[in-house]
Amino acid sequence: MNAQPFTFAGQHILSVNQFNREAIEYVFHIANQMRPYALREKRTEVLRGAILGNLFFEPSTRTRVSFGTAFNLLGGEVRETVGMSNSALAKGESLYDTARVLSGYSDIIAMRHPQAGSVAEFATGSRVPVLNGGDGANEHPTQALLDLFTIEKECQAHGSTIDGLHIAMIGDLKYGRTVHSLCKLLSLYNNIHFTLIAPKELSMPTGILDTITQAGHKLTITEEFSGSLDADICYQTRVQEERFTSQDEADKFRGKFRLDQQIYTKHFQSKTVIMHPLPRDSRAEANELDNDLNLHPNLAIFRQTDNGVLVRMALFALTLGVETIMQQHERPVLWQTPTKSIL
Amino acid sequence: MNAQPFTFAGQHILSVNQFNREAIEYVFHIANQMRPYALREKRTEVLRGAILGNLFFEPSTRTRVSFGTAFNLLGGEVRETVGMSNSALAKGESLYDTARVLSGYSDIIAMRHPQAGSVAEFATGSRVPVLNGGDGANEHPTQALLDLFTIEKECQAHGSTIDGLHIAMIGDLKYGRTVHSLCKLLSLYNNIHFTLIAPKELSMPTGILDTITQAGHKLTITEEFSGSLDADICYQTRVQEERFTSQDEADKFRGKFRLDQQIYTKHFQSKTVIMHPLPRDSRAEANELDNDLNLHPNLAIFRQTDNGVLVRMALFALTLGVETIMQQHERPVLWQTPTKSIL
Amino acid sequence: MNAQPFTFAGQHILSVNQFNREAIEYVFHIANQMRPYALREKRTEVLRGAILGNLFFEPSTRTRVSFGTAFNLLGGEVRETVGMSNSALAKGESLYDTARVLSGYSDIIAMRHPQAGSVAEFATGSRVPVLNGGDGANEHPTQALLDLFTIEKECQAHGSTIDGLHIAMIGDLKYGRTVHSLCKLLSLYNNIHFTLIAPKELSMPTGILDTITQAGHKLTITEEFSGSLDADICYQTRVQEERFTSQDEADKFRGKFRLDQQIYTKHFQSKTVIMHPLPRDSRAEANELDNDLNLHPNLAIFRQTDNGVLVRMALFALTLGVETIMQQHERPVLWQTPTKSIL
Repeated sequence: MNAQPFTFAGQHILSVNQFNREAIEYVFHIANQMRPYALREKRTEVLRGAILGNLFFEPSTRTRVSFGTAFNLLGGEVRETVGMSNSALAKGESLYDTARVLSGYSDIIAMRHPQAGSVAEFATGSRVPVLNGGDGANEHPTQALLDLFTIEKECQAHGSTIDGLHIAMIGDLKYGRTVHSLCKLLSLYNNIHFTLIAPKELSMPTGILDTITQAGHKLTITEEFSGSLDADICYQTRVQEERFTSQDEADKFRGKFRLDQQIYTKHFQSKTVIMHPLPRDSRAEANELDNDLNLHPNLAIFRQTDNGVLVRMALFALTLGVETIMQQHERPVLWQTPTKSIL
Repeated sequence: MNAQPFTFAGQHILSVNQFNREAIEYVFHIANQMRPYALREKRTEVLRGAILGNLFFEPSTRTRVSFGTAFNLLGGEVRETVGMSNSALAKGESLYDTARVLSGYSDIIAMRHPQAGSVAEFATGSRVPVLNGGDGANEHPTQALLDLFTIEKECQAHGSTIDGLHIAMIGDLKYGRTVHSLCKLLSLYNNIHFTLIAPKELSMPTGILDTITQAGHKLTITEEFSGSLDADICYQTRVQEERFTSQDEADKFRGKFRLDQQIYTKHFQSKTVIMHPLPRDSRAEANELDNDLNLHPNLAIFRQTDNGVLVRMALFALTLGVETIMQQHERPVLWQTPTKSIL
Repeated sequence: MNAQPFTFAGQHILSVNQFNREAIEYVFHIANQMRPYALREKRTEVLRGAILGNLFFEPSTRTRVSFGTAFNLLGGEVRETVGMSNSALAKGESLYDTARVLSGYSDIIAMRHPQAGSVAEFATGSRVPVLNGGDGANEHPTQALLDLFTIEKECQAHGSTIDGLHIAMIGDLKYGRTVHSLCKLLSLYNNIHFTLIAPKELSMPTGILDTITQAGHKLTITEEFSGSLDADICYQTRVQEERFTSQDEADKFRGKFRLDQQIYTKHFQSKTVIMHPLPRDSRAEANELDNDLNLHPNLAIFRQTDNGVLVRMALFALTLGVETIMQQHERPVLWQTPTKSIL
């Protein structure tokens, strides 16, 4: 009777390690059903009256607004907290207490916090499901899922699949948690070829390399671009200044692996899709992904952020157990909407 | 025809001094009706389209979110302002002007401000009802009401009533505005026994002591725990560092009246309910209420914050005059909710 | 078939230069229809499910809340961002990228930013309509429109029209962008008499003077009050300290053109309506508009801010193309509302 392979209802979403391939495919199946709502072809009010506690103890405009918008698109309300300097945490309150109290104020919580492990600790005190919106250098599972979802969409558009994918990851592979999590998720698929391009000082941690090789995937490691890469995806990253001990240290690597129209043409093929977790640093001294590629049809960076809304909508619907009844609560959109050509 | 003992509609809620026993009982009567909405057994949309101006010129995450959530739970929308550094008040605007302008942007206002008397001053310029969410060292009436509401619930669970209550108040009784207001409210009842345990430097102001004794209640004042206390309620407080002139001054008293499992067992009885206005300071140097009591069934601290939502919902419904029509606008809850066992 | 003189649907509102007289009159026609919703005689849910991205990279409590409230009053939801210190813009993200990403999170955007030209630049990357909520010293078109709308309402109440108006503008006419924009809009009407009263150092820019004279209006420039002014409107301004290079520089002019009951009686007529863009600086050293005029029936300053909600509602309805169907989605107001006598 019940064809659902999983019940996410009531669960916390804390880590990509919670997901196997079947679970991911179910999330993406639901995410695809969110498209007409995000495109404003129609609305759903399935979560009308529900309250999201959007707790960004570490500020992050795009992730915060993406979660909030995803919840609004399902009909729910959002109560928001930004920053930590004035919170009770600064007065010595434990994460357990904060969780016990704030989980009484909402039906579900999305949370970002600068400290690794903090969201999981918070979740132990929460009486409602908690979605990890990033806990320091540790995890950012919704970003990893939206990246993988984007890869699947881009592959489909090119007539291919994630199985058999060749992905090049470029830049800061040491501190970039998004590439770490993405490697873990991709390792659940078949016959992936990872080409990792990074200076020695910013190379991928061995734990991730082990995950890749133990799953039987192909691994190519290099310190610079050379020749033509047969990659389906080129995943470019930002050198995260804020994770370095000094600006000097960070500046040594900023601008080292720039991608612009000329380099793209030289080293990649016309099929290669360009991704980036955003924000990209467009200042002259960094500029890791040049604006001269902005109109390139294979530039998927804004499709990534748009897909993020779909994936977060799916996770809300799943953890609140409404993924099968969204259609029953649809309403028309009354206002005139622009053609959002990108999504 | 009209059985309502009071009309709160259109009134400001600025001080506990506005309430007599009959008024309190009516607020609590309405607060009890909010329980099924807070427990998500059903929803009400009685305030759909109404706008709360949630003005926290002094930040306070839990009080701010509690007000906002309470309004959302009645179906309303929330427009929020946090902090004061960038507001017009910093550019020399009077509270009167701020009130005239901002009261044109909402149907009701909840306001916190660091300065004593500011909320009442604001209210004189406001064209909509104002609920005091705390004005410096002065008043925080919704906290006092939720404390009293919790005491009533806890008494009921133990087969007793507020009349005849024995309450022990511990710690910083000088600067803790919550205990001041709670004493005033309890003084409206019959035969209360107040046991006040505090160092001389942090003792209860004489004005409050006068209120208690003039109302004919029993008063025991001591500087330390001793023997076994026959208290129904043990109300523990945080030493509010921020109200002292120096950290040294504050540190002298932090950690002086710790309550943990051992002290509780030694000085209290198995019936004694533990309360605390929260946040509690869980750092080693303070730790006024130890985590080893977290699972104790008589620890009511999280029931207090949950009850705060009910009381604030009641005050919104009353001041907007919808307390008798909430049931007519009920809707089902469509999502799966966890069992919120605490409330 | 379609009697609408304009289609604003899908357009950005960036500058007063976009408006001719016919366009203004259509905006005001729609703004007038918003009055019963703002007065809470009834509600409309025409924008139910729509999301406003309220992006205040430069904080401004009243403008931000006014936009948010206007959107709520039409039934929509608001996702808000305040300040810039933690945003991706601070990490080197271009306004184009920010716009591409954030426009995927909402149906329409209201934006304030400290840098002149930034909102227009942002709009080039946005996939949804953008309303300029102030870009530094450049433009603040919704303020200019609400000022003009107020002038029209006040004229109507006195049996006159904007055509033939005599307006006195007083104080800081150099840095006050509101008076600049208002002059441009008034210049679209007939036979306006502008009396500009300002110290030489704070006089109206020549570009604005040219606009006025080229349109054939009457211009009187003076450095101080003298005699009795036959003005319909006295538009007072605040000396904007934050635009001066030093506090000393600003202080030289603060308090120079105070208006109080005595000065008003001496220099103006009983018909003269007093306006001010607010906030007014009520500190003793400034006090450009004294509180002794607070109850004067011709003090229109709070009618201005109330009218701002109507004008912003109109602009939202127009840019989202719902201005003709608002009445079809009306609902009753269930709560008790105070008589908002001002509006």
